Amino acid sequence: MEKARRFVLASRPVGEPKEADLRLEDFAVPEPRAGEVLLRTLYLSLDPYMRGRMSAAKSYAAPVAIGAVMEGGTVSEVVVSNHAAFAQGDIVLGRTGWQTHAVSDGASLRKVDPTLAPISTAVGVLGMPGMTAYAGLLDVGKPKAGETLVVAAASGAVGSVVGQIAKIKGLRAVGIAGGADKCRYVKDVLGFDECLDHRAPDLPARLAAACPDGIDIYFENVAGAVLDAVLPLLNSFARIPICGTIAHYNDTAPPPGPDKLPAVWRMILTKRLRVQGLLVTDFAALHGDFLRDMGQWVREGRVKYREDIVDGFEKAPRALIGLLRGENFGKLLVRVAERSE
Amino acid sequence: MEKARRFVLASRPVGEPKEADLRLEDFAVPEPRAGEVLLRTLYLSLDPYMRGRMSAAKSYAAPVAIGAVMEGGTVSEVVVSNHAAFAQGDIVLGRTGWQTHAVSDGASLRKVDPTLAPISTAVGVLGMPGMTAYAGLLDVGKPKAGETLVVAAASGAVGSVVGQIAKIKGLRAVGIAGGADKCRYVKDVLGFDECLDHRAPDLPARLAAACPDGIDIYFENVAGAVLDAVLPLLNSFARIPICGTIAHYNDTAPPPGPDKLPAVWRMILTKRLRVQGLLVTDFAALHGDFLRDMGQWVREGRVKYREDIVDGFEKAPRALIGLLRGENFGKLLVRVAERSE
Repeated sequence: MEKARRFVLASRPVGEPKEADLRLEDFAVPEPRAGEVLLRTLYLSLDPYMRGRMSAAKSYAAPVAIGAVMEGGTVSEVVVSNHAAFAQGDIVLGRTGWQTHAVSDGASLRKVDPTLAPISTAVGVLGMPGMTAYAGLLDVGKPKAGETLVVAAASGAVGSVVGQIAKIKGLRAVGIAGGADKCRYVKDVLGFDECLDHRAPDLPARLAAACPDGIDIYFENVAGAVLDAVLPLLNSFARIPICGTIAHYNDTAPPPGPDKLPAVWRMILTKRLRVQGLLVTDFAALHGDFLRDMGQWVREGRVKYREDIVDGFEKAPRALIGLLRGENFGKLLVRVAERSE
Repeated sequence: MEKARRFVLASRPVGEPKEADLRLEDFAVPEPRAGEVLLRTLYLSLDPYMRGRMSAAKSYAAPVAIGAVMEGGTVSEVVVSNHAAFAQGDIVLGRTGWQTHAVSDGASLRKVDPTLAPISTAVGVLGMPGMTAYAGLLDVGKPKAGETLVVAAASGAVGSVVGQIAKIKGLRAVGIAGGADKCRYVKDVLGFDECLDHRAPDLPARLAAACPDGIDIYFENVAGAVLDAVLPLLNSFARIPICGTIAHYNDTAPPPGPDKLPAVWRMILTKRLRVQGLLVTDFAALHGDFLRDMGQWVREGRVKYREDIVDGFEKAPRALIGLLRGENFGKLLVRVAERSE
């Protein structure tokens, strides 16, 4: 008989998560009741927000409880259906978490058409990360042709899409990424105008050279040293959509001084910046537009994507630790199981 | 023969300005040429932004040069007119600076109708500070009835108007001011729901008690300890229009750590805050609406104002130092001369 496995939160990380903060458990494959489906996880999406869910700190979403299954977006296959809207073999997008099997009443599932695009893209370029880039850049960033955009983690799931949409909209796109390989990919394959290696010395001077007309949109997903380099280059009326601050997710205390907040607050005033946070879940009204536009851009090859697929469910904790270190190259996924024929 | 006097910037202040940073000079009353008018200053407006103009640091406007006349908004009387659009005795609003007399080609002057309101209000509730409050609250803050607004310097030229407009728009208005007299005035005369003395202990707890439903708009004009107290109380989707950070204008270096910026940046994300700087000069398109609405509100007594008038031009430097310390009570003005009959 098939066994199910899941990762539960064993302890709240202090600083960088350890593999032991997540505990692998076996459990019996659950039985779907009337109106429910049994799902087998094919892909588990790994994303930076997960670090926040491991902490007890107050945030926009409740933390995962100790002993509870880690949260996560998944692409799954319907194994058994007692639900009129789903058939065995259907592929669905859900938030069933870090487990090989789950039962669902279908309310939070969305069917994925495997003939339109690889099913893994439902948690990538055509899913939450792609939508974050789309809504954050277009709705919050309000890009105008001829402007300059800067985005870090430029080879990653969100940053790669931000820069490519910026190019479609006629902006200059400058990426920042970790290492020469990623930078080459961002420039040569994704078509950014420039990509700078944040590991090389003197990022501020290189960024200034790459942005001769200043910066009009800084799509913030990292903060830290990249933000420091960006701030002096911001033009008046620049926009900073904030979708993440991954450089600080493993901080155990506020960084040492001096306190940069007063100078940044004053710069927001003198340059009339707009700094605005965004969560993808706030943009449900744009989802139809997103699927139409992004689907077309991907089909036309105007938006390219790269997946970093880790094979084997048991490797998920190590992969998440690597994600927070910037070790992945492209959208990070765990392949939990093969689709059945 | 009448002598003219002016204050020029003698030296750039380090920290709090000293009176000696401004030097009083005599000069010959200038002669207007064809197309020009000679103005006699009646009121000089003193405003916090002036501290920025005394520094060499890059900002939205060029600093005042050493030896040049200090900048400032003025209400003046036309003494001699060689300009078709102005007659002797006209009252005009201008930016002729810290001097008793000035010559102008009229391009940057606006006539003030002395029958509509006291002429001093042209640099107060019906002028730049009133317009800053109006545009910042309505256009940037986007207030909605039932929300809670917090503003500091609540008895001052901008804060007093922000809170009164908030009340007109159906918000709960909570002010912060320095000392019991100002707080009583803000609550009893201006009609704020609450006003808290920032000099009394435990502002964070008192602010939390005054904002039982959290804070939806924090109109930022001070930063510092008030911002620290506001941040934990902000609701999701709160707005922070930034028009000033007076608590830091005399800073000589960034404050010691820890660095609060990463935590604030993350809060902007998790609460989906919108933080946006504003300069009144960006809102020329709203000026007609402002004059119509504010004129009506003042006539109807729905917006009250209080002026803190210092008599004597020579007292301007000391008054500016006091403004930066929060010693004024109401819109600070220097009465430079009486209107002639």
